[in-house]
Amino acid sequence: MLSATPTAAELAEYARTLGARARRASQRLAVVPGAQKNAWLKRSAALLRDRASDILDANARDVAAAPGYGLNAAAIDRLKLTVNRIELIARALEEIVLLPDPVGEVVEGQIRPNGLEIRKVRVPLGVVFFIYESRPNVTADAAALCVKSGNAVILRGGKEALHSNVALYEVLREAARETDLPEGAIQLVESTERSLVGELLRLRDYIDVTIPRGGKSLIERVVAEATMPVIKHFDGVCHVYVDESADLVMARAIIINAKVQRPSVCNAAECLLVHRAIAKTALPYLAQGLLEQGVELRGCSETCALVPQAKPATETDYRTEYGDLILSVKVVDDLTAAIAHIGEYGSHHTDAIVTGDLAAARRFIGEVDSAAVIVNASTRFNDGGEFGLGAEIGISTDKFHARGPCGLRELTSYKYVVFGTGQIRG
Amino acid sequence: MLSATPTAAELAEYARTLGARARRASQRLAVVPGAQKNAWLKRSAALLRDRASDILDANARDVAAAPGYGLNAAAIDRLKLTVNRIELIARALEEIVLLPDPVGEVVEGQIRPNGLEIRKVRVPLGVVFFIYESRPNVTADAAALCVKSGNAVILRGGKEALHSNVALYEVLREAARETDLPEGAIQLVESTERSLVGELLRLRDYIDVTIPRGGKSLIERVVAEATMPVIKHFDGVCHVYVDESADLVMARAIIINAKVQRPSVCNAAECLLVHRAIAKTALPYLAQGLLEQGVELRGCSETCALVPQAKPATETDYRTEYGDLILSVKVVDDLTAAIAHIGEYGSHHTDAIVTGDLAAARRFIGEVDSAAVIVNASTRFNDGGEFGLGAEIGISTDKFHARGPCGLRELTSYKYVVFGTGQIRG
Repeated sequence: MLSATPTAAELAEYARTLGARARRASQRLAVVPGAQKNAWLKRSAALLRDRASDILDANARDVAAAPGYGLNAAAIDRLKLTVNRIELIARALEEIVLLPDPVGEVVEGQIRPNGLEIRKVRVPLGVVFFIYESRPNVTADAAALCVKSGNAVILRGGKEALHSNVALYEVLREAARETDLPEGAIQLVESTERSLVGELLRLRDYIDVTIPRGGKSLIERVVAEATMPVIKHFDGVCHVYVDESADLVMARAIIINAKVQRPSVCNAAECLLVHRAIAKTALPYLAQGLLEQGVELRGCSETCALVPQAKPATETDYRTEYGDLILSVKVVDDLTAAIAHIGEYGSHHTDAIVTGDLAAARRFIGEVDSAAVIVNASTRFNDGGEFGLGAEIGISTDKFHARGPCGLRELTSYKYVVFGTGQIRG
Repeated sequence: MLSATPTAAELAEYARTLGARARRASQRLAVVPGAQKNAWLKRSAALLRDRASDILDANARDVAAAPGYGLNAAAIDRLKLTVNRIELIARALEEIVLLPDPVGEVVEGQIRPNGLEIRKVRVPLGVVFFIYESRPNVTADAAALCVKSGNAVILRGGKEALHSNVALYEVLREAARETDLPEGAIQLVESTERSLVGELLRLRDYIDVTIPRGGKSLIERVVAEATMPVIKHFDGVCHVYVDESADLVMARAIIINAKVQRPSVCNAAECLLVHRAIAKTALPYLAQGLLEQGVELRGCSETCALVPQAKPATETDYRTEYGDLILSVKVVDDLTAAIAHIGEYGSHHTDAIVTGDLAAARRFIGEVDSAAVIVNASTRFNDGGEFGLGAEIGISTDKFHARGPCGLRELTSYKYVVFGTGQIRG
């Protein structure tokens, strides 16, 4: 354990200890059978229910201290645990039991002309360093996904949730001991020293990937300091483009759902684009539906002329992830202009077109360079659960390694397994 | 173009110009049909043959200047082009024509219960910055693989090959114009200013991945400076472990092939491990075969006692990629000790076991954490061509994104394409 006021050398040593222990655990965890990992998940769920009152006590300390950290009411609500919320955490673990084990999946295989049998087989990445903020349920979710995919995990939550996270971690660790998982498979960084994150980000011999989940400044800091690969989850400036040929009733349902159903999440729409040829009819109709839902509209000059309630949008508006009931709106010349706008202002996350025109749909799909391109449905569907991946550890805005929702498979690598009968190369 | 003695600001500006042009080209190249990319490959091959004498003239200037750069005879031989070598470069391009286009491949697809059609579709990564040394044939190979996979490429070869690379690049660019590829799809950095590489490595908005191919110091510099993902190709400290139950005739053929067939490459064996129970019989027999091929042996004390010609190995020997007719040798207690040695001293590249025992083979495969784990065949098979990937741009020693041989598919990402009929999320 660290002292209360650790020196830089002590922090570096503590980080190396965590890393080395995770690396050793990962080597053993890579060959732990699926049944054993599932036993740990089930035992963790059962223990969470048994220990609910301890967890709630710990959480109450965090909630009491939250105003001192400057958390607002919404953030305190996210931090707060209840018996019902603990039940949901336990059920989430039980749902991960049901997902297929990604480790050992034969991705492809063949027999070469020389008789060599070659298989590409999924294996864990190794050690995941997961950095997150606030919500304590993430502690259990992330540990479950990492361990189920055969990875050792080092968890580093926010200081606001430290007592809750420690209580949850005790449960996960106790279940790990009972089900004989390797020591060090799950570790929580029990210090909120900021520089400790920096020390861990240096350890590329021990950590195979870092996953930061939180605000943009956290992710930017991690990207700047990490010496290992990072799965990034940057902002979602998502668009709905209503094409000339769109069914306007469908378009209205989609843009309302994309903006309003859960405005704080990354796959919510932030910008509505409308083809000029239909703007005069479409915009007042779409705007009416949005305004009825309490959405503030910020539009280009044409939008403002057609929708008196809209305020003028600035250049910055079109680059902004509001995370709130605010929507930027723009009239565009045509599909080409819509695609160009999305390329220039979007964040390559999730973009949708509403259209009845096959050629327009195909061009949009081909030319919009986003993790998910959606025809005639809400942007809100870009989600691990909705895509059938099961639980997700985040939605990657990278193109490298994993793009879009990251579930169990995205936490794996692969190796080539070759069987011969004495073949040599000529 | 750059001036002869560019300022830092001019270099930064030149780098940004290259990057921005590549980014624009990549957006268009992503939707260029396969037939057009193949037309470019075929035209390039034809033009290479037509322009052979120009290319040879340029190459002669590099070869003449080579001793001034301190190149030894072997390096000058690798640099030197001949009519026959140009023909081989042209044929390599024609072979890439025959490979399936990775862009648009549907990796998986399903219809969700709500009727949403979801497809995971392969797309190019975007812009590849490829840094390499010496051999000019790499210029054509790398450009071909990048463009066939839909990526724009910025090529930066070694100063020793600059005239040859420029001559090859002129051909590739002329073919690109004739076949109407986007301007900027292929660019060569026509300056050998070292700091220019640093400027390019800063441009993560323009470059999606950097691939360095060359010595360890080049790769380490790129890893340290790059702000975008890097596909690394570190050293191959590859092992052949001869198990207690091995067929010794097979083992001898495999270790000789793995060491001798092409000692300079990364999948050549550098270390032989032998189970103690058979060492007394096996080691002299294996050593005899290796010594007859002119291999220098550096062994542990037991090896030296059994093989008088062996010199004592140091700790460093076991971590060394000789790239030459030298082999370290060690007697190990058992399979467990062999796996531990490989984990400690190896480079996670390619490791082989020779065994007749199923349980030993399965444990080796599961517990050795290398890009390729091989049972009863030579390590030399870890190769894109041998694995059926076609040509390769390198062999990744990473676990992230791509592991082992990197062909066309490893130069791609994917996007989720979703078709709905108005679905919204409840």
